[in-house]
Amino acid sequence: MRVLITAGPTREAIDPVRFVSNRSSGKMGVALAEAMVGRGHEVVLVHGPLAVAVPAGVVAVAVVTADEMYEAVAVWCMGMDAAICAAAVADYRPVRVAASKIKKGEGRMVLELEPTRDVLGSMRAGMGYGGVLVGFAAETEALVANAMGKLRRKGCDLVVANDVSREGLGFEVDRNEVILCYADGRVEELGEASKGELAGVIVGVVEGLVAGVGGGG
Amino acid sequence: MRVLITAGPTREAIDPVRFVSNRSSGKMGVALAEAMVGRGHEVVLVHGPLAVAVPAGVVAVAVVTADEMYEAVAVWCMGMDAAICAAAVADYRPVRVAASKIKKGEGRMVLELEPTRDVLGSMRAGMGYGGVLVGFAAETEALVANAMGKLRRKGCDLVVANDVSREGLGFEVDRNEVILCYADGRVEELGEASKGELAGVIVGVVEGLVAGVGGGG
Repeated sequence: MRVLITAGPTREAIDPVRFVSNRSSGKMGVALAEAMVGRGHEVVLVHGPLAVAVPAGVVAVAVVTADEMYEAVAVWCMGMDAAICAAAVADYRPVRVAASKIKKGEGRMVLELEPTRDVLGSMRAGMGYGGVLVGFAAETEALVANAMGKLRRKGCDLVVANDVSREGLGFEVDRNEVILCYADGRVEELGEASKGELAGVIVGVVEGLVAGVGGGG
Repeated sequence: MRVLITAGPTREAIDPVRFVSNRSSGKMGVALAEAMVGRGHEVVLVHGPLAVAVPAGVVAVAVVTADEMYEAVAVWCMGMDAAICAAAVADYRPVRVAASKIKKGEGRMVLELEPTRDVLGSMRAGMGYGGVLVGFAAETEALVANAMGKLRRKGCDLVVANDVSREGLGFEVDRNEVILCYADGRVEELGEASKGELAGVIVGVVEGLVAGVGGGG
């Protein structure tokens, strides 16, 4: 099958030097891409600045900002059998980007931020109302409730939820513990494992959803 | 000799997931550390999150925030023969850090930032008024004037200035073109070169300044 995977953070410029970003390393998305390639699938990987190397055997599309990721995904998602949005796209960006480096002053500085365009929210329509859409929800509280809300608002078939407030799991590190939230309301907890192991399980679930057998429930 | 080198960006948390940072990769500081080790010097490398590996043969002190870098430098700089501050320490940090992940809303969001403590500015006194102090100035305009101002305000012996607005040079990439600004007013332009080559030249200049022969003028 053909799969679009997004990975990594995006960066939103404050000035030519400074930016707002998040702690995503891209490891989970890259592990998913590797697992998909390993199962013989065609992968387009749209990725922000990664802390790990782009895996061999994928079509890699590098972006920096949320806006660039939105545009790249719009180009690539149509007709995909599945799309897995593991990227941690910036929700906010500075309203104004300074043309030259802001000099340090004595006092406080106010940075006004505006919402970015909703990448995951654009994909159900962008894929052509076919294909399996998988989102990720990185939460620090009310994990399943927030993930199920995201699933319904964005028209996902599956949301992979992880608690990023837990020490040693989630962002930046090699291990994670996730909860799979399905559109029919089922919730499946996967125990703590390496991102590679979790990627293998998630790829199996997505293959099942694409085949119409309802995944790992 | 014993040298303290700082490298990389710092990250200032907005909430458990998001942060403000800058485009420094740490490549210049790491190249300087490698060149110093290669010349038989003892190196303490205080570094933020790096895009490259910590070189072998250094004492590495990992930090995340500007405040952590300030504290680490205060501990390590006393009695050093030289200190080279190649880190791009955040000038501003959020006044308030949200305890849980800020949810995306419809409207704009205001982020209030406050100045961080001045790491380079603390070092002249911190080193015990001896030793050679080298700063870096990443500028997008008025390169030499800004660098010379920084040199005088911070009590540096040398400021290495680079124009980060130039495509393909400076932040993130492997090549740079810098201007050496000395305390006696001399200005020395080094042509475009790899960061490794520039590091070799800068190490030679610092060795000269430590030996009291006035560096590369």
